[in-house]
Amino acid sequence: MSKRVTSLNEQSHPFTANFPGSTKVYVTGSRPDIKVPMREIGLSPTTGTFGEAENPPVRVYDTSGPFTDPDYAVDIAKGLPAIKSIWIQERGDVEEYDGREIKPQDNGYRNENDPRTHQHVFPGLKRKPLRAKKGKNATQLHYARKGIITPEMEFIAIRESMKPEFVRDEVAAGRAIIPSNINHPEAEPMIIGRNFHVKINANIGNSAVSSSIEDEVEKMTWATRWGADNIMDLSTGKNIHTTREWIIRNSPVPVGTVPIYQALEKVNGVAEDLTWEIYRDTLIEQAEQGVDYFTIHAGVLLRYVPLTAKRLTGIVSRGGSIMAQWCLYHHKESFLYTHFEEICEIMKSYDISFSLGDGLRPGSIADANDEAQFAELETLGELTKIAWKHDVQVMIEGPGHVPMHLIKENMDKQLEVCQEAPFYTLGPLTTDIAPGYDHITSAIGAAMIGWYGTAMLCYVTPKEHLGLPNKNDVREGVITYKIAAHAADLAKGHPGAHIRDDALSKARFEFRWRDQFNLSLDPERAIEYHDETLPAEGAKTAHFCSMCGPKFCSMRISQDIRKYASDNHLDTKEAIENGLKEKAEQFKQSGSKIYQ
Amino acid sequence: MSKRVTSLNEQSHPFTANFPGSTKVYVTGSRPDIKVPMREIGLSPTTGTFGEAENPPVRVYDTSGPFTDPDYAVDIAKGLPAIKSIWIQERGDVEEYDGREIKPQDNGYRNENDPRTHQHVFPGLKRKPLRAKKGKNATQLHYARKGIITPEMEFIAIRESMKPEFVRDEVAAGRAIIPSNINHPEAEPMIIGRNFHVKINANIGNSAVSSSIEDEVEKMTWATRWGADNIMDLSTGKNIHTTREWIIRNSPVPVGTVPIYQALEKVNGVAEDLTWEIYRDTLIEQAEQGVDYFTIHAGVLLRYVPLTAKRLTGIVSRGGSIMAQWCLYHHKESFLYTHFEEICEIMKSYDISFSLGDGLRPGSIADANDEAQFAELETLGELTKIAWKHDVQVMIEGPGHVPMHLIKENMDKQLEVCQEAPFYTLGPLTTDIAPGYDHITSAIGAAMIGWYGTAMLCYVTPKEHLGLPNKNDVREGVITYKIAAHAADLAKGHPGAHIRDDALSKARFEFRWRDQFNLSLDPERAIEYHDETLPAEGAKTAHFCSMCGPKFCSMRISQDIRKYASDNHLDTKEAIENGLKEKAEQFKQSGSKIYQ
Repeated sequence: MSKRVTSLNEQSHPFTANFPGSTKVYVTGSRPDIKVPMREIGLSPTTGTFGEAENPPVRVYDTSGPFTDPDYAVDIAKGLPAIKSIWIQERGDVEEYDGREIKPQDNGYRNENDPRTHQHVFPGLKRKPLRAKKGKNATQLHYARKGIITPEMEFIAIRESMKPEFVRDEVAAGRAIIPSNINHPEAEPMIIGRNFHVKINANIGNSAVSSSIEDEVEKMTWATRWGADNIMDLSTGKNIHTTREWIIRNSPVPVGTVPIYQALEKVNGVAEDLTWEIYRDTLIEQAEQGVDYFTIHAGVLLRYVPLTAKRLTGIVSRGGSIMAQWCLYHHKESFLYTHFEEICEIMKSYDISFSLGDGLRPGSIADANDEAQFAELETLGELTKIAWKHDVQVMIEGPGHVPMHLIKENMDKQLEVCQEAPFYTLGPLTTDIAPGYDHITSAIGAAMIGWYGTAMLCYVTPKEHLGLPNKNDVREGVITYKIAAHAADLAKGHPGAHIRDDALSKARFEFRWRDQFNLSLDPERAIEYHDETLPAEGAKTAHFCSMCGPKFCSMRISQDIRKYASDNHLDTKEAIENGLKEKAEQFKQSGSKIYQ
Repeated sequence: MSKRVTSLNEQSHPFTANFPGSTKVYVTGSRPDIKVPMREIGLSPTTGTFGEAENPPVRVYDTSGPFTDPDYAVDIAKGLPAIKSIWIQERGDVEEYDGREIKPQDNGYRNENDPRTHQHVFPGLKRKPLRAKKGKNATQLHYARKGIITPEMEFIAIRESMKPEFVRDEVAAGRAIIPSNINHPEAEPMIIGRNFHVKINANIGNSAVSSSIEDEVEKMTWATRWGADNIMDLSTGKNIHTTREWIIRNSPVPVGTVPIYQALEKVNGVAEDLTWEIYRDTLIEQAEQGVDYFTIHAGVLLRYVPLTAKRLTGIVSRGGSIMAQWCLYHHKESFLYTHFEEICEIMKSYDISFSLGDGLRPGSIADANDEAQFAELETLGELTKIAWKHDVQVMIEGPGHVPMHLIKENMDKQLEVCQEAPFYTLGPLTTDIAPGYDHITSAIGAAMIGWYGTAMLCYVTPKEHLGLPNKNDVREGVITYKIAAHAADLAKGHPGAHIRDDALSKARFEFRWRDQFNLSLDPERAIEYHDETLPAEGAKTAHFCSMCGPKFCSMRISQDIRKYASDNHLDTKEAIENGLKEKAEQFKQSGSKIYQ
């Protein structure tokens, strides 16, 4: 690995500092090793004309992992601590074994002796992989159905302010999943289900055209710092295996992949040369590394493919088009479909969750909710039942490009045909005409479908349709999707979702500028924008802002009104009608002269 | 005026160039002086593997005015041509008169002889103001109700691809307004109503803290270039009168103001010193300049004010808090309410539209849809009836901060209590926690409420709550709101709205990169982002992009599928079932080998 990445532990890297005003705290569960991280935002007291009162700190969901813990010495060449190892081991249903050998093809090299195969290899501790013992099933769904509340479930209950039994019940019903490969013990437990906080996923990954291992590791820490609950590694170029190893060993959040991407590299990009054997080997390879969920496009059936021919934009899912090509060429159903039960056997040995891919999702407004899309969704519903038969956790991927009036139909149909398995959507984009702003065209659809019941939103960056996201695009995409997810939590009435809004609005109202910045999703951006007009330190405590200036401020008038109503007991409609007249004179004498 | 602004006509200013691939065209109506501007985006032909076909140009709504007409010599010191003057004059119901004298106070100066009063004065042609003759009514609503289709209505019908009679009927019913002060003959006719394209407004204006006349004129041309259908001049500092004159004389779109802002400056910021006489004088001052609509917070009644006392964020509307302060101090209903009929008399003499302000709009999620907000809305409904009695055009302003699940209630209630007068909303913001990104928090709400029936969306820039927008913020805000408005048009099924989406998606699918950029809302951003990864000129015609690279591309597979389905007549479900088997072999020989 290059110096740039390993040196992270030598210097005080900006990623490892917490946000201003924030402290990392842990809430301990029923056993000392259940330590749930939260970010506590300290607030200053209310003072002066607003009365005198303490403002309790606000605790927010924290996805940044140990990186923001000042007591943790970051060393990405070592990887994160394996916080879940004991829980996994003590259940007694898994075993270590000698894993598969790494091959040159895993990193995209043809020559069996290519020295680049072992270049940049992750230098940290190499554990032997785990798998379920013969006849055992190591999935959270399996435990949930047996009535067991795992430490993972308890961790999540604390994280989401829910009861452990509720978490278990949602998982048992298939309405929520806990992606948690037993070979990714570094990840903090996280749940995806519509009765919990709406989650977001950030895609990273190199491609044939651009970027490097170190960039991708940096993007992962960056994305989780800003709030990504999940990341997907969608690498398609060289060094896929090695890049993934670095990412997983350092990721505090679950990691998803689309295994067919790597399998395609192994057959040099020729879709029809793919075989079940190559694919299966890739699944094992990634399972042993610790990938938490696999996107598998098993719903692309041969007879659905020609349904896309009359579309404006055909098949836009990369995985979908690979499988379509394969099906047509061989004129049979894909190995993903015909070997689905075998795939389930693998998934349950490692507790990898399915993310059943929507290979036929619409790539334009014109193609939304068409026959091809919904035909595939029906098949995904059937596959869900099969996976559940094996106690394998499942979520379902959704579109894509959908105008607002067709979004709810997607959600309702998904809940119906997939028996309430969690929905995981990309956007959807609500118009096609704004490349460069597709984080916004899609945040509109994402917020809405999140409200309607989608459990996880896959972010879209401003570069969508145009190029690969850089670090700033990742930040922009993550924050935009945190907005969509939080707007959905508010609209769903998720308990406690409004606390941060209320605290921020109260700070705004009381001109506690620092608190307003610190409570915001992106404190750095907020302060930067504020300081563009009023950079002086004094403006951070000023009872005005640059919008109206110091002479007149509506917030201050509101304070007057509040004082007036309180002093005069005008707190009900009746009191207002009766009391206004006699109190008017007093008001003239009292607080109305603050505007000089 | 400083050199910087007047020199616009000397140099080739970037604002005056059209977008790449675009041409300014005019569609002529029933008379030669009805010349409706449109931007025609030329497209390249489809070629190669995608077949051979011409792609017709796409015409889009054009708000940029003569600035983007290559035959027009821009001179902002002269102002735009008065395209509507003949229409206004030939109706025979208006007269010229000696307007009000400009006073030092109009520009915020106290001293009667302050030389700054006449500094920077607009040097162009000074027309005498027009007003309706005694006993006449010069409003578009008045004409519409008399069954007259004005040239303004015909212009709009062409612009919106509707029938002139439909335009007249919507205006007559009060469901749509055409803001068109007879003293702003430079503005191109534009309609606000929910059965037309959703419109957007961009706020500009200087404040006590920041910015200058030239910045504001530049922001206006900038905002309309990116697609603002309206601008509001919300200036609050010095030189309000002069700034507004420069803006109006150069604005191809209607201009709105909040007259109480200027009136407050005239009483040195002391709300309780405001009088009907000062306010009335300000209305006349602005009416003679040509302001097309006035935001008037006449619904802030005395008894509603204490209803805001228990709110988390009180009154956040500047106009609302000014009036609340006034009402409480004097203990009477505001002069906006008590003199409402006299205001109507002024409005109808100039055809100024009401934008009935929501002085009690919620400033936080916690305060959404509360008693204060809805009480005021009821009053706005009553005032609408009074305005309509005078044939004065009315729209109603709406919130603010509203979580998604409460948005529809706002729209439904507004339609009901305001008898379908057009709704004009600020956002709404769907969460409070993202200062720095409030263009996005609000675009979510704006798109939804636009779909539900809001006729115009007031933009929010990334600087909302933090500072005054600069030029880049204006662009960001306008494009974000064009997205929201267009998403709403699509969801409402507005005829033709999908044409641009479909053309862009087809271009994307066929790798016509230039066409994709040119059809987008912000071609400059699209090309900039694309070129970050693939700057070479060849990449603009390449049949791949940086996301997947040249080796494998889902778009190309889709082309294969299309060819396969077409060659094999697999165009119905039945044909697919029957035909797949026998056609498989042929496919292997044909087009499946393009992935090397």
